[in-house]
Amino acid sequence: MAPSQSVDPKFADHRYGVWLIGARGSVATTAIAGAAALRHTLADDTGLVTRTPGFPQHALPDVARLVFGGHEHGAGAGTTLTKRAEHLARAGVLPPDLPAAIRADLEDADANIVDGVARGHGQEHPSDGLDRLRDDIGRFARERGLRDVVVINLASTEPPTPQRPEFASLDALTAATRSGAHVLPASARYAHAAFSAGFGYVNFTPSVGAGIPALAELAARNHVPYAGSDGKTGETLLKSVLAPMFASRHLRVRSWSGTNLLGGGDGASLADPETAASKLASKGGLVSSLLGYPVDAPLHIDHVADLGEWKTAWDHISFAGFLGASMSLQFTWQGLDSALAAPLVLDLARLMVAANAHGRSGPVPELAYFFKDPIDTSVHDLATQATMVRQFAERLGSTPGRAR
Amino acid sequence: MAPSQSVDPKFADHRYGVWLIGARGSVATTAIAGAAALRHTLADDTGLVTRTPGFPQHALPDVARLVFGGHEHGAGAGTTLTKRAEHLARAGVLPPDLPAAIRADLEDADANIVDGVARGHGQEHPSDGLDRLRDDIGRFARERGLRDVVVINLASTEPPTPQRPEFASLDALTAATRSGAHVLPASARYAHAAFSAGFGYVNFTPSVGAGIPALAELAARNHVPYAGSDGKTGETLLKSVLAPMFASRHLRVRSWSGTNLLGGGDGASLADPETAASKLASKGGLVSSLLGYPVDAPLHIDHVADLGEWKTAWDHISFAGFLGASMSLQFTWQGLDSALAAPLVLDLARLMVAANAHGRSGPVPELAYFFKDPIDTSVHDLATQATMVRQFAERLGSTPGRAR
Amino acid sequence: MAPSQSVDPKFADHRYGVWLIGARGSVATTAIAGAAALRHTLADDTGLVTRTPGFPQHALPDVARLVFGGHEHGAGAGTTLTKRAEHLARAGVLPPDLPAAIRADLEDADANIVDGVARGHGQEHPSDGLDRLRDDIGRFARERGLRDVVVINLASTEPPTPQRPEFASLDALTAATRSGAHVLPASARYAHAAFSAGFGYVNFTPSVGAGIPALAELAARNHVPYAGSDGKTGETLLKSVLAPMFASRHLRVRSWSGTNLLGGGDGASLADPETAASKLASKGGLVSSLLGYPVDAPLHIDHVADLGEWKTAWDHISFAGFLGASMSLQFTWQGLDSALAAPLVLDLARLMVAANAHGRSGPVPELAYFFKDPIDTSVHDLATQATMVRQFAERLGSTPGRAR
Amino acid sequence: MAPSQSVDPKFADHRYGVWLIGARGSVATTAIAGAAALRHTLADDTGLVTRTPGFPQHALPDVARLVFGGHEHGAGAGTTLTKRAEHLARAGVLPPDLPAAIRADLEDADANIVDGVARGHGQEHPSDGLDRLRDDIGRFARERGLRDVVVINLASTEPPTPQRPEFASLDALTAATRSGAHVLPASARYAHAAFSAGFGYVNFTPSVGAGIPALAELAARNHVPYAGSDGKTGETLLKSVLAPMFASRHLRVRSWSGTNLLGGGDGASLADPETAASKLASKGGLVSSLLGYPVDAPLHIDHVADLGEWKTAWDHISFAGFLGASMSLQFTWQGLDSALAAPLVLDLARLMVAANAHGRSGPVPELAYFFKDPIDTSVHDLATQATMVRQFAERLGSTPGRAR
Repeated sequence: MAPSQSVDPKFADHRYGVWLIGARGSVATTAIAGAAALRHTLADDTGLVTRTPGFPQHALPDVARLVFGGHEHGAGAGTTLTKRAEHLARAGVLPPDLPAAIRADLEDADANIVDGVARGHGQEHPSDGLDRLRDDIGRFARERGLRDVVVINLASTEPPTPQRPEFASLDALTAATRSGAHVLPASARYAHAAFSAGFGYVNFTPSVGAGIPALAELAARNHVPYAGSDGKTGETLLKSVLAPMFASRHLRVRSWSGTNLLGGGDGASLADPETAASKLASKGGLVSSLLGYPVDAPLHIDHVADLGEWKTAWDHISFAGFLGASMSLQFTWQGLDSALAAPLVLDLARLMVAANAHGRSGPVPELAYFFKDPIDTSVHDLATQATMVRQFAERLGSTPGRAR
Repeated sequence: MAPSQSVDPKFADHRYGVWLIGARGSVATTAIAGAAALRHTLADDTGLVTRTPGFPQHALPDVARLVFGGHEHGAGAGTTLTKRAEHLARAGVLPPDLPAAIRADLEDADANIVDGVARGHGQEHPSDGLDRLRDDIGRFARERGLRDVVVINLASTEPPTPQRPEFASLDALTAATRSGAHVLPASARYAHAAFSAGFGYVNFTPSVGAGIPALAELAARNHVPYAGSDGKTGETLLKSVLAPMFASRHLRVRSWSGTNLLGGGDGASLADPETAASKLASKGGLVSSLLGYPVDAPLHIDHVADLGEWKTAWDHISFAGFLGASMSLQFTWQGLDSALAAPLVLDLARLMVAANAHGRSGPVPELAYFFKDPIDTSVHDLATQATMVRQFAERLGSTPGRAR
Repeated sequence: MAPSQSVDPKFADHRYGVWLIGARGSVATTAIAGAAALRHTLADDTGLVTRTPGFPQHALPDVARLVFGGHEHGAGAGTTLTKRAEHLARAGVLPPDLPAAIRADLEDADANIVDGVARGHGQEHPSDGLDRLRDDIGRFARERGLRDVVVINLASTEPPTPQRPEFASLDALTAATRSGAHVLPASARYAHAAFSAGFGYVNFTPSVGAGIPALAELAARNHVPYAGSDGKTGETLLKSVLAPMFASRHLRVRSWSGTNLLGGGDGASLADPETAASKLASKGGLVSSLLGYPVDAPLHIDHVADLGEWKTAWDHISFAGFLGASMSLQFTWQGLDSALAAPLVLDLARLMVAANAHGRSGPVPELAYFFKDPIDTSVHDLATQATMVRQFAERLGSTPGRAR
Repeated sequence: MAPSQSVDPKFADHRYGVWLIGARGSVATTAIAGAAALRHTLADDTGLVTRTPGFPQHALPDVARLVFGGHEHGAGAGTTLTKRAEHLARAGVLPPDLPAAIRADLEDADANIVDGVARGHGQEHPSDGLDRLRDDIGRFARERGLRDVVVINLASTEPPTPQRPEFASLDALTAATRSGAHVLPASARYAHAAFSAGFGYVNFTPSVGAGIPALAELAARNHVPYAGSDGKTGETLLKSVLAPMFASRHLRVRSWSGTNLLGGGDGASLADPETAASKLASKGGLVSSLLGYPVDAPLHIDHVADLGEWKTAWDHISFAGFLGASMSLQFTWQGLDSALAAPLVLDLARLMVAANAHGRSGPVPELAYFFKDPIDTSVHDLATQATMVRQFAERLGSTPGRAR
């Protein structure tokens, strides 16, 4: 089968599942609502990176072919996608009339959402828990007749997960789990479930997710791809173009101070210092890494409830130029984080489905563009990352996929 | 002669002239002082793009081999480089102790500065005027024993120059000039003089400079290169990384409003609306050009005397994301323009000398990185421009230069 | 009648008219909708200055007793208050559900809106035009059984009105008008109509309004008060607290640069340089006036259509401290101008009705608090103005009003 | 003696001491250098509040009559005022040529500086320590022939000091001290010494200083005044005019987030979380106090070494207007803290000397204008505080002082 600009037959006739962890959160709801809006041509494709020139559309499943489901727990479990969408419309994230117009799509996705796991561990034996999650995803694929599924973690950030001996190999992990030890945090249990079910996994949060040797082993064994971590939606996005600008011009950054104000559930979750540690770790080292030398870079995340879905970041960059001249740059970014994140979730679903169709397994560093803390690469410069992901998509578009 | 990582013999033994138009202005003084500081290892190479990794040092003349001279007129003619350097030290552009430490270098360069032309035309016959300027530059090269010279325009911005029939060909221009018609603005007369003397020319301002068909013809005839225009030092530098970021992420810029506050001579010159028109034209279309669609982009330049050498730019960018969500970015850039511009002047001198040594003639679009309104290219994206200039330098480094 | 904290009987039983020029504009619609929301206790009194501690409520007519009508022309004439309110709800100025909840109030006010005058002059004889406007207001008072009416100019800003001989006295103006000369701009015609009908007038715009000697004479003759001009809603509000702060601390302001970005109808109107001249004149001299010495204060107003109802102002203040140390303050104000202006309109209606009830006539400089360019006073410091208006209200509260 | 506009005789013939704790710190050095500059008319009185209109100059000792000395310890003890002044000139706080011009004045003051106490306690018996400090100040007054002295604490911020039983009364404190217990932190020991010597005390820091019942008792017994605490130089200054603006306009502040970046010694000291707690406590409650309702107000202080003497504060204020419309204000303050603080030190010296001359003892809440956390008053509104201090000075100017 020769590659061509016509739509890849494997994507024309099938539907693909997107299984979201945190399926009734703001990002998930916006992604589901946005996909429905695109399907009904109620919105254009603004924000979707894979719809910019250079991405071979025939090589990627159309957004209209994506079917949504997922796990939800805690507060989110008591609501519905429709209610969440109405809230987001009031907050300016969704157009006012959209929730009513796509009500059927929201209800359809809502029916695919099942109880997940809370951060802690309940009465369930850990092996049973992993089996249950895996079966939830498998059932979704089977019952909805899906050609492939990609699991994407959009749940609230977890506290940092220290590595432990049981994580060192799949055998060690399996032995510990069978013995009844609850060693895996929630994000890792979902990654385990995805890989066990034979599906790819994307970690859009700074939680540990698939970042455990035992899970890498499981992904390799089951020939499935994974990507992450921590979606790059605002302040870090700017860092990834501004820091290379300073480097390119040989201007020496002396300090890079940042303050993030955010409301909403994400803000409340990050107000917990233990949780914030994960996010700060994911964001913090970036500037030094991009510049190649250590930089004084204090960074704060504050929960400011009244900001609702808005995220405001102020960064102050002090830098030296020729002959030591001292200068500065400040910026204020005012973004609706869900509106920034949701199209990337759809981009990642499209790319991961295509990657899996082409037999790609293990980490996919070519997707660094989307992440604050990209897996298996030290490339943080957005322009280089953009070339990486476009070339990756082009390669997918010029070679036939495997049968799945 | 095989190219190698050792210093190119043609650069090891010679000295190269940098002939600055506006030779006692802030940028020129900072460039001359900075080169002296580097020669005496009183400063590091921060701000010099050609000193970042990837640039083959053996292919470019060392800054220590540059000899400075130039034309000056008007207010600048009544002062000295030493006095100007002391002023810049008080203003925070130069280190406090530098002027005293490099006094001999400043005096040496000062001795090479001669009267230029004012914006208007005096009693001199225009042909005589062009000959005089050409001879000034030739004498500098001869008397100082320079292997090559590059002429760089750092003079105050001129009002826009409309094209006229006499500009259409070198014959038409020569005929008009011989007949006594004063048709060329100052910046073009200096370009004419550079090309007539057999030297390259860089237009670091938005004035017309070499941007006249007759002068392109002259450059081609005399086999000399030229580059420009309008050095990219602040707000536009940021636009050239931020606009591509929005494009890459498929975020739709709705408006990009900018205000520039600047003091000093540059500010006073741009306070004249006629003059500012040149600068605004050079800066204005950039965003739409980078994004590929028209954007509402009001732009102001205000002269605020008390800011002295500082330039403060505030930009407000309003953009739409997924599903039309409305968001914004603001930045404030506080830069010392001379400290930002001066190292680029040295970079351009190094690159143009090398280009000329390799027989390059006519426009050099590979130097787009340095300019707001680059000649003969539509590439405005800084990351792409950075690749262009680095690859250009690598090519220079891997091929032998012609004998000059 | 002894003054007391109980409600002043004269305000308890009556209704008062608010006749708005530009009655279907954003500010007018927000004021009318807001009064209705307060009447139905659908909103609290945030933004109403006269509802802060220190204002004697018994001395001011309750917002619930205000009846709205007005003149409208041009684009506004083709719409309805309900449609305008729905637009403002989508723009975030009004709560999403408010327009539906107060539909009857909006329709009731809409029925009181009649055609006004366009900026130019039609076929109508100027005397007839003035009579018609006066009769429109009189009919409103009579038919709705109103105890008093205050006319408030909220129409788009006019270009500056040069003084002319016909403005010098009421006789001269009347003679000119009777002779068929169209000498008064629209804003002044409305002031004339208000005074002729025996009602007070407030100029919330920088247009000339009552600022003509002949009109001052008419107001005095008819014993009616007037106030203005140009409601202080954003950038100027900040100036009126920040400039006194610098003065109080003996910090010397060196420059105060401002940029205003605004969309909406106000923005479009101010994009016309001729019109903007009025606004810039009203805003421009303030800083020097507050500080007592001349300050370099470039100021721009840009129409940025996509900002809609939002107004964003960036100010950069450069100042010197002890021993000449050079420092700076920047601020960015992001306001919904209609939401800021509308409660002031209600405040002014309350205060002017009370002033008229107490026999106050001519200019009312005690209301300087509300204006960028207050009439008959040079007090621009907000804290002093706040004391002035509160004491004015207290005096109204402690003396019996005249019978009207 | 009738009060008059001529200089109060008691101030014409005498000299007054200013005893600074932290006498070689940036603020102290700037205050001493600035007083010398004024004495030699090398600078104007910009920044001195007591030199603005409304302050009766005859009632306050001239700056030229102030004689400086003080305690220093730790790092500061190894340097000289001259070296410190040269450093401050390089940092832009002092004019470049000032240190040389006032060298004799700096050396004269330097000779009056003696070793103080470190934050901890050494081998010295606590009673001996207090006596020694008292004697240092007394000797300064005696040897320099000073009519009065005021002690001003400019030392680095201490960690918060919990109240303890020994602080409850002077007897309890004296008993504890005599028994050898080290109960007083350094700032309180200096206040004790000032009061014991019969002199007034100003706490320009957030340390506890005189804020202990036993010390209030000592001040009352010895009839000396004291004031504080924590000089209001930047972000808080802005809060004290902006919060009243919001209150006056009945705009509801929803959140007020602040980030302070500072270098220098002050920054390093505040980088210690324990120390920062004092400063944050002093700054934190202000907004709620000014507004009269609780406001979400996260506040950070970051030490960013490369900022040197600069302090940059970014505040983001989210507020609601009429009908709940959500708006925001941001500001960035870039100040040289020493240049802002030093003239206030001179103001306070002038006012405290005059207060003492008029027999004022105990807390002086009329000086609230100068402090973040003013003693014995809840007035935080700058405009009201300005009236308080001006009226206080006027009263001093219209009544004869006691003989001292």
